[in-house]
Amino acid sequence: MRAARFYGPGDVRIDEVPEPKPQKGQVKIKIGWTGICGSDLHAYLSGLAEKLMPDGKTPHPVTGETLPVTLGHEFSGTIVELGPGVDSKRLSVGQDVCVEPLISCMKNSCTMCSGGSRNVCPHASFLGIAGWGGGLSEYITADQTLVFPLPRGMSLEVGAMMEPLAVAWHGVKRSAFKPGDKCLVMGSGPIGLMVLKVLKARDAGWVGVSEPSVSRRKMAEEHNADALYDPRSVDVVAETLKVTNGEGVDVVFDCAGITASLALGIQAVRPRGFVMDIALWEDNAHVDMNALLMKEVTISGILGYDRVHAELLEAIAAGKFQGLEKLITRKIALDDVVEKGIKALLKEKDTQIKILVNPHRSA
Amino acid sequence: MRAARFYGPGDVRIDEVPEPKPQKGQVKIKIGWTGICGSDLHAYLSGLAEKLMPDGKTPHPVTGETLPVTLGHEFSGTIVELGPGVDSKRLSVGQDVCVEPLISCMKNSCTMCSGGSRNVCPHASFLGIAGWGGGLSEYITADQTLVFPLPRGMSLEVGAMMEPLAVAWHGVKRSAFKPGDKCLVMGSGPIGLMVLKVLKARDAGWVGVSEPSVSRRKMAEEHNADALYDPRSVDVVAETLKVTNGEGVDVVFDCAGITASLALGIQAVRPRGFVMDIALWEDNAHVDMNALLMKEVTISGILGYDRVHAELLEAIAAGKFQGLEKLITRKIALDDVVEKGIKALLKEKDTQIKILVNPHRSA
Ligand SMILES: [Zn+2]
Ligand SMILES: [Zn+2]
Repeated sequence: MRAARFYGPGDVRIDEVPEPKPQKGQVKIKIGWTGICGSDLHAYLSGLAEKLMPDGKTPHPVTGETLPVTLGHEFSGTIVELGPGVDSKRLSVGQDVCVEPLISCMKNSCTMCSGGSRNVCPHASFLGIAGWGGGLSEYITADQTLVFPLPRGMSLEVGAMMEPLAVAWHGVKRSAFKPGDKCLVMGSGPIGLMVLKVLKARDAGWVGVSEPSVSRRKMAEEHNADALYDPRSVDVVAETLKVTNGEGVDVVFDCAGITASLALGIQAVRPRGFVMDIALWEDNAHVDMNALLMKEVTISGILGYDRVHAELLEAIAAGKFQGLEKLITRKIALDDVVEKGIKALLKEKDTQIKILVNPHRSA
Repeated sequence: MRAARFYGPGDVRIDEVPEPKPQKGQVKIKIGWTGICGSDLHAYLSGLAEKLMPDGKTPHPVTGETLPVTLGHEFSGTIVELGPGVDSKRLSVGQDVCVEPLISCMKNSCTMCSGGSRNVCPHASFLGIAGWGGGLSEYITADQTLVFPLPRGMSLEVGAMMEPLAVAWHGVKRSAFKPGDKCLVMGSGPIGLMVLKVLKARDAGWVGVSEPSVSRRKMAEEHNADALYDPRSVDVVAETLKVTNGEGVDVVFDCAGITASLALGIQAVRPRGFVMDIALWEDNAHVDMNALLMKEVTISGILGYDRVHAELLEAIAAGKFQGLEKLITRKIALDDVVEKGIKALLKEKDTQIKILVNPHRSA
């Protein structure tokens, strides 16, 4: 079968690789659609995610693989085969599914894997980043515990977005957010918009979005942001104080990952408010700690998710999310993954949200 | 009466001022001892605390005072007079007391003052910083709700340290600390040592201290730190991993307020661990946000306290703290507050912990 494999910064190739066979407890999935993600970009450009990806020399401690690895961790598909020991009451051939692509050591001696949270296992990574295949190939096998049937009526296209939506869901869950809270989202790129949708689904009282790009602000508007601010021309702090009785918002979600957005978040949040960071950073943040401690603000950040797919899919089945398909801005074939996919996300970043790849289509 | 008053950076003078009279609900206290604090130094050097102190032009929004203000917010004393309406069952003339020197707007419309926490009121400050007198004078008046009798057997000297100890208590309380936790304290200056003592009093499982100064490390040892590290010659992260089964400490307390200590704290804490910052910063911190989010670390900070004095005094009365008097390294007279007090804390910062001032003594 064909697969898009990462060889190093700037080097992604379409290779012919063997089709995987489902091992004990695994299902084989024919990939439907696979989204391209900011972390794929980071990998493509800089080989960041050095902690997540094999470096080309040392095998990844869990998968044992080195470069090249197949890319793609945001994917949906259809079950085509059950390996031995799979619970056939829960999963069956022909079912449309999405996958929680988390990899961790799963050792009993690991506090995180045994009792804490698998995504902060010291060896945590993802299918499509650290090995064991990825969504940018025709087929993948995955452990049955990571595979979730799509709710009735959900297309494979929307199913491919459950992974980034799970990131946003996890980020909101790990923050101090409560229904009714007033929130500010910094940046309405893909993750910012997903956070906006999760906040609306979880009954936020008010969600403002700060975003310099006109077209991205327009998208946030289409996804029902309550207020839109251009941080280059508007005093976002003053504006959010107006709608929060002079106190500041309850929770800020920084989805931009730059010092300016984090600093603005610390100013815009109320005393004892919470700033949740959901972004990969290129540089260190410069943080005014005195501003933080004078308001006793709390900052945290997240990476990935751990066992949130089931509750996310339940919320979607219950009708809490609308218009998810509007997040898809382009659909391409596997051969176009670099030129019309990864590079387009860089060049057209103001207008592209989710680019989906169909690994079964050629150019 | 005489009072040490702050006129501006580097300018503290001993002035003759009127003795205060207790108003309704207030008690008049003859000051016993007053500690000099890091924030007094900051004020002396740079007029920092610009949010806490009047700036010499605009009156402070709560006290209405401008510069000069009387300094000293860490003090104990003896009640010499009860104003009208004071609860004479709780407070009486001759009682040795300490004071929670918090100032806030106390308006019903202020969410923080009415239901949240007074120390994060937008107008929060302190007696001895923003007006209404201070401990570096012979007498002060304070609202009865802020006045707490010292436990039986506590000297006025130790009583003067209840304020910085309340800061440490509040910092531990606002962190994720639980009894049994393994903790790392960055910096064993006055606040670092107070945090160490609170952690021991609250049954920490293990407390390591990272401190470059030999004499400060020695003091941490005397106050029962379980391990001492010189961050300039020891790999503190590697050492703490050894004592935490390779996972990292549960909570880090940064009492140094420099980028290096915060960065080391983020590395030394376990996944989903907590870093509490209790220090005034001179510069912005440079924070590796990717390191933070990959472990889902939480950072917060505190300023002051809110209604913790009662539980702190209870813990001391119950024998949870030992050797508090060993934190006092010098006792001086009011006239010596600048030369042997503030300047000594700067010049002899490796050996001075708490310098106490007796405002009734001349040089
Ligand atoms: Zn693990
Ligand atoms: Zn207030």
